[in-house]
Amino acid sequence: MNDVVNLLKSHKSVRKFKAVSVEEEKIKEIIECAQSASTSSYIQAYTIIRINNMEKRRSIANLSGNQKYIEECPLFLIFCADLNRLKIACEMNNKVFVEGYVETFILSTVDVTLAAQNALIAAESMGLGGVYIGGIRNNPDKISELLKLPTNVYPVFGMCLGYPDEDTGNKLRLPMEIVLKTDYYTSDDDVEMLKEYDEQIKNYYIKRTNGQRADTWTNQVGSLMSNPQRPHMKDFLKEQGFKMK
Amino acid sequence: MNDVVNLLKSHKSVRKFKAVSVEEEKIKEIIECAQSASTSSYIQAYTIIRINNMEKRRSIANLSGNQKYIEECPLFLIFCADLNRLKIACEMNNKVFVEGYVETFILSTVDVTLAAQNALIAAESMGLGGVYIGGIRNNPDKISELLKLPTNVYPVFGMCLGYPDEDTGNKLRLPMEIVLKTDYYTSDDDVEMLKEYDEQIKNYYIKRTNGQRADTWTNQVGSLMSNPQRPHMKDFLKEQGFKMK
Repeated sequence: MNDVVNLLKSHKSVRKFKAVSVEEEKIKEIIECAQSASTSSYIQAYTIIRINNMEKRRSIANLSGNQKYIEECPLFLIFCADLNRLKIACEMNNKVFVEGYVETFILSTVDVTLAAQNALIAAESMGLGGVYIGGIRNNPDKISELLKLPTNVYPVFGMCLGYPDEDTGNKLRLPMEIVLKTDYYTSDDDVEMLKEYDEQIKNYYIKRTNGQRADTWTNQVGSLMSNPQRPHMKDFLKEQGFKMK
Repeated sequence: MNDVVNLLKSHKSVRKFKAVSVEEEKIKEIIECAQSASTSSYIQAYTIIRINNMEKRRSIANLSGNQKYIEECPLFLIFCADLNRLKIACEMNNKVFVEGYVETFILSTVDVTLAAQNALIAAESMGLGGVYIGGIRNNPDKISELLKLPTNVYPVFGMCLGYPDEDTGNKLRLPMEIVLKTDYYTSDDDVEMLKEYDEQIKNYYIKRTNGQRADTWTNQVGSLMSNPQRPHMKDFLKEQGFKMK
């Protein structure tokens, strides 16, 4: 197991940070690493917005389910899927940008996620820690207004970064057999495997909370998925130019 | 600049591989790294399908724009966004899975992409190389049939992996100033910066092709984006349970 594998396997989300700035040189390296990620057909369809303004941070924290660490972290980035730049590229070459296909939505969402994961790994390699903030999609319209996002750009997630001031444990992942299949998809043994996994997760929670919590994985994610997820997203995205054609 | 940053910055897509298998122990490590990536609310909404069957590989290559390296690479993985497992989790807890929100589509697409990027980085750290295959979305219905994907699962991209048998150059990324903004989005200087970037890219192509090709970045991506992108995706996804509600 080499150092990179070690780093990747020891990932854990960090939400509590030391009151120490992240060095500008490191931030530059982090963004360079983000940009080095693969990109579909070279389109590089993302923009990263670094939020320095503390008032903005406060607003974003409030709009994202009151996640305090958005205010507290030394470095807060918002990763946007960006097709606006490609529209500009079209205009520069007297071409007409074709808007609104779901495929283009996928392209930009995948592109920005690849870049973000590179950023997080680079940061972690420097002793920093961080967490993704999907909560910015709680109020994507207000976030977009704050960030002055044009059409064909949407905020996918935020990322808090800084020097860790907590040591959380890794969360046990699904058994590999359930996530990795060979040649075709089958879920024949999933229920059995999930039951075993549930037991492990339950024991983990019991141990970590001194018996206060004994939830299973399937119950936890089942509760989540039996409720509509951010039902405002469709209208927001449509308004923003992502018409899901 | 540490070793990880070095590795991330030196990424290049590899499409030509030595006829050497990837060790099973390494494959296991790669998948473990994939699973260690962040996951939204712990949902782990993806399944990785390893394609060993050579007939299947041939079919997939044909369906993905005749990309020969899908057949030739020692290890070929297909990364699927997977909500089916979460549906099973609902059923195990007598809950009703809510299908079809665009937000859930985002959650699973982001989750699978984070995992995939970890897989690629892990592989690269072991001396392997690889390339993402978005081409599997050329014929997602036939690919899904081949892989026996149930509803609420869709194939996002493939990944070819193996020991590199070519040494391609890195492709120059956009200037950082255009990708990284502070506090809010602005594209005021984008055209100027893109013109400069275009010059650099043009010179790169001229040099690499001995003057045969002199394309600019904006022309290249503009040509792409002035054509509808995979317009079949909407209907395919709808059929597959991703109704973009």
